[in-house]
Amino acid sequence: MHSADPSPVHDPDQDQDQDQDQDQDQDQDQDHSDDQDHSDDHEDDHDDHDDHDQRQPDMVRFRAFSSVKPLVPPLNFAIVAPGVYRSGYPGKKNFPFLNKLGLKSILYLCPEPYVGDNAQFIGDQTLSLLHFPIHGNKEPFTHIPAATLRAALVALLDSRNHPLLIHCNKGKHRTGCLVGCLRKIQKWTVTSIFDEYQRFAGTKARILDQQFIEMFDTRELVYLLEHRPQWL
Amino acid sequence: MHSADPSPVHDPDQDQDQDQDQDQDQDQDQDHSDDQDHSDDHEDDHDDHDDHDQRQPDMVRFRAFSSVKPLVPPLNFAIVAPGVYRSGYPGKKNFPFLNKLGLKSILYLCPEPYVGDNAQFIGDQTLSLLHFPIHGNKEPFTHIPAATLRAALVALLDSRNHPLLIHCNKGKHRTGCLVGCLRKIQKWTVTSIFDEYQRFAGTKARILDQQFIEMFDTRELVYLLEHRPQWL
Repeated sequence: MHSADPSPVHDPDQDQDQDQDQDQDQDQDQDHSDDQDHSDDHEDDHDDHDDHDQRQPDMVRFRAFSSVKPLVPPLNFAIVAPGVYRSGYPGKKNFPFLNKLGLKSILYLCPEPYVGDNAQFIGDQTLSLLHFPIHGNKEPFTHIPAATLRAALVALLDSRNHPLLIHCNKGKHRTGCLVGCLRKIQKWTVTSIFDEYQRFAGTKARILDQQFIEMFDTRELVYLLEHRPQWL
Repeated sequence: MHSADPSPVHDPDQDQDQDQDQDQDQDQDQDHSDDQDHSDDHEDDHDDHDDHDQRQPDMVRFRAFSSVKPLVPPLNFAIVAPGVYRSGYPGKKNFPFLNKLGLKSILYLCPEPYVGDNAQFIGDQTLSLLHFPIHGNKEPFTHIPAATLRAALVALLDSRNHPLLIHCNKGKHRTGCLVGCLRKIQKWTVTSIFDEYQRFAGTKARILDQQFIEMFDTRELVYLLEHRPQWL
């Protein structure tokens, strides 16, 4: 599939030794930083490089990054494929996390328009909102319209929209159906598709959704070959 | 975060129209292909372009790909980050799927050596096997050795090993611990890390694993800054 890795085969024993070295370094660090302000760890690490020449110069302690604020991914966040993410409805506390993804568009599957913080977020970030209003499957009379879902898939398969985040309310049902149909295009077995669907839907898994995915006819899908993602 | 999308903002109504066009196209296709062999769909599509000038020339029907055999991802397969995948123990029926990932290495977390089909697979594909033998957490006396897990993380954070597949037996516990520790380095909140852990472990989630992830000290981690992945 690809050429041989030019780097030598990894030796876990060697790593073990390296790890012990790291532990020593860490002890030295602790002694060293006792009389320093902990908020100043980054500069502290730089000093360390000068003090301990036996350490490899291009290795850094993770602590340098530890002052960064925690990041909060949206509910049910995951990577679907390179450049395609999925989640529940993102809120203000998720925006710093989403910023790191460098999104170009949001593929939004609820009927309600984008308002408030979210509308401002896509404006601030100059994101394209790809809005495909869908009511989730609900027995006995509400069914996901196949034409709208096909249109959403066409937008999803256009790599000019990537990186892209798919979301609905919980990231379980409508998002699960769209991702399930994408997996059919990727030729995944139905067993694997349902396994993934259930991983996100959990106890809320809907037979109607799985029926929709199983019956979805990928042969009816027409999309831009020129702009399809590389992984397809 | 990034520059404005030069393409016009997406109009779902327009897509709806497009979708109807596609439906028409599909009807024409069906009429057209009635007197053709279905296994010859790809060529059929090419003929179609000549026959129906009103269709956008760079749009193709998905049907062209429908003769490809179904692909079987390994149990609990998912994308962790760009170039990093996770799963349960892959077997022979998963190899065509894994081939499509263009893997460079496999990060393997069970104590048993690689044998049989799997040993042959990594030989055939000239993959590097990064083997970090770990026994999963088990009450009361078996605990994942933090030093080995740190060594595995260092290999995982070296982008020269990517694309890389992490796997253990079920892709739940040992893999879940390694990915959980990676998420700590990515500064995810513990709530989000546990949510992801539980998505894969399901009813088999282990408190000891979650304890391990929570207590794991990222400050003790030393890795090659020069080769860290872009997404970190």
